Amino acid sequence: MLTEEEAGNLRVVLVAARNPLNIGAAARAMSNFGFLRLCVVNCYDVAFREARSAVGAPQLLANAREFASVAEAVADCGLVVGTTEGGHRLIEQPLLRLDAGGGVIRARLRADRVALLFGSEKRGLSNNDLSYCHWLMRIPTREVHGSMNLGQAVAVCLYELVRDNAAAVRQDAMQRASGAALERMTQALLSSLKESGYMKPGMDATTKEKVRRLVRRMELSEEDAELWTGMLAKPGNRVKGKGRNQ
Amino acid sequence: MLTEEEAGNLRVVLVAARNPLNIGAAARAMSNFGFLRLCVVNCYDVAFREARSAVGAPQLLANAREFASVAEAVADCGLVVGTTEGGHRLIEQPLLRLDAGGGVIRARLRADRVALLFGSEKRGLSNNDLSYCHWLMRIPTREVHGSMNLGQAVAVCLYELVRDNAAAVRQDAMQRASGAALERMTQALLSSLKESGYMKPGMDATTKEKVRRLVRRMELSEEDAELWTGMLAKPGNRVKGKGRNQ
Repeated sequence: MLTEEEAGNLRVVLVAARNPLNIGAAARAMSNFGFLRLCVVNCYDVAFREARSAVGAPQLLANAREFASVAEAVADCGLVVGTTEGGHRLIEQPLLRLDAGGGVIRARLRADRVALLFGSEKRGLSNNDLSYCHWLMRIPTREVHGSMNLGQAVAVCLYELVRDNAAAVRQDAMQRASGAALERMTQALLSSLKESGYMKPGMDATTKEKVRRLVRRMELSEEDAELWTGMLAKPGNRVKGKGRNQ
Repeated sequence: MLTEEEAGNLRVVLVAARNPLNIGAAARAMSNFGFLRLCVVNCYDVAFREARSAVGAPQLLANAREFASVAEAVADCGLVVGTTEGGHRLIEQPLLRLDAGGGVIRARLRADRVALLFGSEKRGLSNNDLSYCHWLMRIPTREVHGSMNLGQAVAVCLYELVRDNAAAVRQDAMQRASGAALERMTQALLSSLKESGYMKPGMDATTKEKVRRLVRRMELSEEDAELWTGMLAKPGNRVKGKGRNQ
């Protein structure tokens, strides 16, 4: 996760964007992900600041800085990264996939200003624009349809920068029912099955284990396990306050 | 990385989308990332199939399936995930960040059909829509500006699904110059510095080491190290064909 200061070190630089709606959409995505510094170089429509697509981000768009050249826009940045479809042109610079390059940019934002360049909708960045870049980055789109909408490309790149690489590991920490809660539910279910005659009094251990596994497969939250326990319990055995349906 | 078959197991379901341009933009992002099955439920504009924003994806849009209810759209799916801004409403379902939930969906696509639901631009998914979901997922946007453009949200979610989680590790495998190439360059630089008088003939090992470290810090590619070696060599010592500038 980036701090506010780290996010403040990123400049999103749109070079020769044609459609003001795309500039507005880029601004919206920047605001969504907490990157507030937009630079535009040689954009076609000088009225881009009024783009209605900048939903929730009019101030960011109003604060955008205009430059006459890429050189001026990136002058204060220690790392300059160009985005490219990466397909056809001869590339003499290192090219990283976004999923790899994002981590490099994240690390550099801790201590340095980084410019992330996006080219025009039609042609992308020119060879001259690319010559200011330390390396290039491409979003892993399909070869047969590589070209993304500008606003969507900005959104995807910025998401990668705020992405929490530890989250995938932590997701399994989602609150699951404790073993005790699952066992209470299992016992309630077994009693209920005995009661209903579904299971005979002398039922074997294998059947009990099947029921126990069934309950574990449900991956319930603690709350839902208690709700089930409450619903399965005989009316006389119900513990007050356990389970919402009582 | 997903196979074509795994990607074919995903249904992107747009529920009550208002703006056909957003449906088109969603189709474009789907095509970019290789997910070709679009379902729409109760969309406002029945003419969405002509949306010009579906650049490069008119066929995908033409093949979109229309349903009258979420229940019908997700009927053949083993996992149903709803996207939500996650802010205000009371949520009784597990909520995962995209960076965590994406991995769960990726794993399920190997063997099962998965529906990924997106709600309308104004209100997102209704509580009724959400009740069909096994769990919910949110894109990690800022609390102060959580609401994303629909087309951008679709693009970001699909990027997470095609993201290569091993890429960040592999990026360091980017072709760097070999130790031998770096040492050739180092020797050429040392000779050149001696030649120019920058370094005295009896220069000490510490200075040599400083130069050696300087060369390593540049993290050059093999090609660029050879280019440097060629440029630094005395004209008489230049090896033909090494280095582009000769």
